[in-house]
Amino acid sequence: MDDPAFIIARLGRQARAAAHTLAGTPPARIDAALEAMAGTLLATQNEILAANAKDVAAAKSAGQTAALVDRLTLDSMRLAACCASLRKIASLPYPVGQVLREWTQPNGLKFAKVRVPLGVIGFIYESRPNVTVDAAGLCLKSGNAVILRGGSEALHSNIAIEAALRRGLTSAGLPSEAVQLVPIPDRDTVRLLGEAVGLIDLLIPRGGRGLIETVVKTARVPVIKHYDGVCALYVDQAADLIMAGKIAVNAKCARPGVCNAIETLLIHRDVADKFLREAGRMLTDRGVQLRAEPRALAVLKKAGLPATPAKDGDFCTEFLDLILAVKVVDDCTAAITHITTNGSHHTDTIVTGDTTTAEKFLAGVDSAVVLWNASTRFNDGHEFGFGAEIGISTDKLHARGPMGLEELTSYKYVVRGSGQIRG
Amino acid sequence: MDDPAFIIARLGRQARAAAHTLAGTPPARIDAALEAMAGTLLATQNEILAANAKDVAAAKSAGQTAALVDRLTLDSMRLAACCASLRKIASLPYPVGQVLREWTQPNGLKFAKVRVPLGVIGFIYESRPNVTVDAAGLCLKSGNAVILRGGSEALHSNIAIEAALRRGLTSAGLPSEAVQLVPIPDRDTVRLLGEAVGLIDLLIPRGGRGLIETVVKTARVPVIKHYDGVCALYVDQAADLIMAGKIAVNAKCARPGVCNAIETLLIHRDVADKFLREAGRMLTDRGVQLRAEPRALAVLKKAGLPATPAKDGDFCTEFLDLILAVKVVDDCTAAITHITTNGSHHTDTIVTGDTTTAEKFLAGVDSAVVLWNASTRFNDGHEFGFGAEIGISTDKLHARGPMGLEELTSYKYVVRGSGQIRG
Repeated sequence: MDDPAFIIARLGRQARAAAHTLAGTPPARIDAALEAMAGTLLATQNEILAANAKDVAAAKSAGQTAALVDRLTLDSMRLAACCASLRKIASLPYPVGQVLREWTQPNGLKFAKVRVPLGVIGFIYESRPNVTVDAAGLCLKSGNAVILRGGSEALHSNIAIEAALRRGLTSAGLPSEAVQLVPIPDRDTVRLLGEAVGLIDLLIPRGGRGLIETVVKTARVPVIKHYDGVCALYVDQAADLIMAGKIAVNAKCARPGVCNAIETLLIHRDVADKFLREAGRMLTDRGVQLRAEPRALAVLKKAGLPATPAKDGDFCTEFLDLILAVKVVDDCTAAITHITTNGSHHTDTIVTGDTTTAEKFLAGVDSAVVLWNASTRFNDGHEFGFGAEIGISTDKLHARGPMGLEELTSYKYVVRGSGQIRG
Repeated sequence: MDDPAFIIARLGRQARAAAHTLAGTPPARIDAALEAMAGTLLATQNEILAANAKDVAAAKSAGQTAALVDRLTLDSMRLAACCASLRKIASLPYPVGQVLREWTQPNGLKFAKVRVPLGVIGFIYESRPNVTVDAAGLCLKSGNAVILRGGSEALHSNIAIEAALRRGLTSAGLPSEAVQLVPIPDRDTVRLLGEAVGLIDLLIPRGGRGLIETVVKTARVPVIKHYDGVCALYVDQAADLIMAGKIAVNAKCARPGVCNAIETLLIHRDVADKFLREAGRMLTDRGVQLRAEPRALAVLKKAGLPATPAKDGDFCTEFLDLILAVKVVDDCTAAITHITTNGSHHTDTIVTGDTTTAEKFLAGVDSAVVLWNASTRFNDGHEFGFGAEIGISTDKLHARGPMGLEELTSYKYVVRGSGQIRG
């Protein structure tokens, strides 16, 4: 049966059963399975690369962007990196079973808050075959079964990768249904995953805003979103301007297409002249278009730098490109207000030498990650030391910011007594 | 304007602004406000009791159940208990600002995971005016603004209470919009709260299953649910049967109408005869109707105890009444399977003297609270030592089990550097 509803229901039931088995699996067996999966990936390298070549050829002839084709493409080095990632995940501490808190009540009841798997994770993501491997590894390590719904451009690659991963699971004595791919490109499957109440415990959609909004609109299962970032750098009056310039260039230019790149540059009025003369040149030299509000525009013009007036909405736009909205503000409070009003609560940073101002900014900006004297680019699970990440949550519930293994778990309370009844 | 959509939008905007102020309020000021609210509640006791008398009279003449009228009724003792509850909440540790984890990465970046308020809580609940006070206190203590949508039978009482609480807030120098009541009984407001994306950060519905299902079906904001409990007691082969009997009576009879009462009794086949003869009598003496599957029915009949055959669905039903579904099982594994298949993952307990069997049950039953040798009635924020609770989550995300102050918070990452950029 190729009916999408039938397929999702079957995957869900199988995943639920696999999750039940995983919940009782000793950690060492999980890690052995991760090793085995790395092994079967390498062993079937030829099949995987051949399937990938088919996807890449189709994407090119369909006129997909170079960026998409690049992310879609596998080679033996990238496949080796996938295996290394699985081994890295195996080396991380096992989150399930961790006792988060223990206490005893006066009546003698002993309470323990214990980390448990969520159960079944649904994961919707871009056409990036390496993400298939990472997500399978993270979900398995956290004791969850996963249903993977990758971008349709990567379907052949993902089918080959899924087969390899499941052979690894089987060889380690785990149910191969712990990792399952949605095997058809049908767009309906995205909606159906969101409606699989009782089968899916958490749905994580990644990708463009349109896709995520569609998922959020129709989903009936819990969703943790991974929206884009309208991130800001605020250069304070007391900033080391050399440091601020380096951070501006890193945060804007290193990878302009990612969510933790800055889209907004705010500068204290007292240092606007000096900073923008230098940093404006560094940015425009790297091809950055500056869109400035009147005060900033005047400074840039005076310095002979190219800039255009900022338009309505420029300060709440994620350009994902070499474009930066620039504004002069009166003080740190004005910067906080601007970020609160226009930002997306993703990642914001201040550069200042003044501790009081820094702490005011760190407390006043309610974003998933707030930094002082560092680039916004550090909002990333690897940079946090989480070992791996399945996404960056822009939600406030359950998980906020980079999501690693712990964010894929829940907890339960275990209470040990000696016959206590409640009066 | 009495238009529900207009009212909810206004309350939401005002709550958002108040939440912003609360986020920057020193803890001592929050506690002072809680004290002030207790004071204004007492000072306006007469107005509140008069408003409550109006609600009670209307409920009686509308033919509401005695249970509803009881929960609706205030008197000076119950009002004093509300004030004590506010003072108790003031005495609890302030959750916001707690550093949950701190670490430094090799590049020198210092990471801190810091507890922050969620922002604006929407709370939908039964016609219980004392809950209005508790919820306002809990949300304020956790730094959140709250929009309260109590049952319509309690509207006059809640309006009087809201006025008193807001006078307390004002007198302590906090925005009175931190606590707001939906001032109309219109049922549309429930749906509108669920649709208030961007204004409400978390919606907590409490009440009957029908109400909660309606909220879940239409809500677009995050919801943490408080569904009912199909809770089980498993009496193991190695149980102290006297203890098991006492726990059965406590868990079923103390308050049959609450979610942590048991609805299912499972007994190991080797002790079924002996246990059911004694405990069956204790339960039926207290008016409990036993609905038994064939093996259990045979034992009960043999002991001359009244019992009827269990019908389809009895083992997945929350009776909320003096009714108990009884079943004999072959062993602990069968008990776990029964609970996994039929229970609601709320609260389950085992009575046994055997540690291995107990640990197997505690690990194998995936419920919010799993107990050993203790009554299911202990699934309660007060019994956990949380000081107060806003509900019991049957969800797995963000909060599971009793929800106290910590469960009303999120976190953010604060990163302190010295100019780090990402390579």
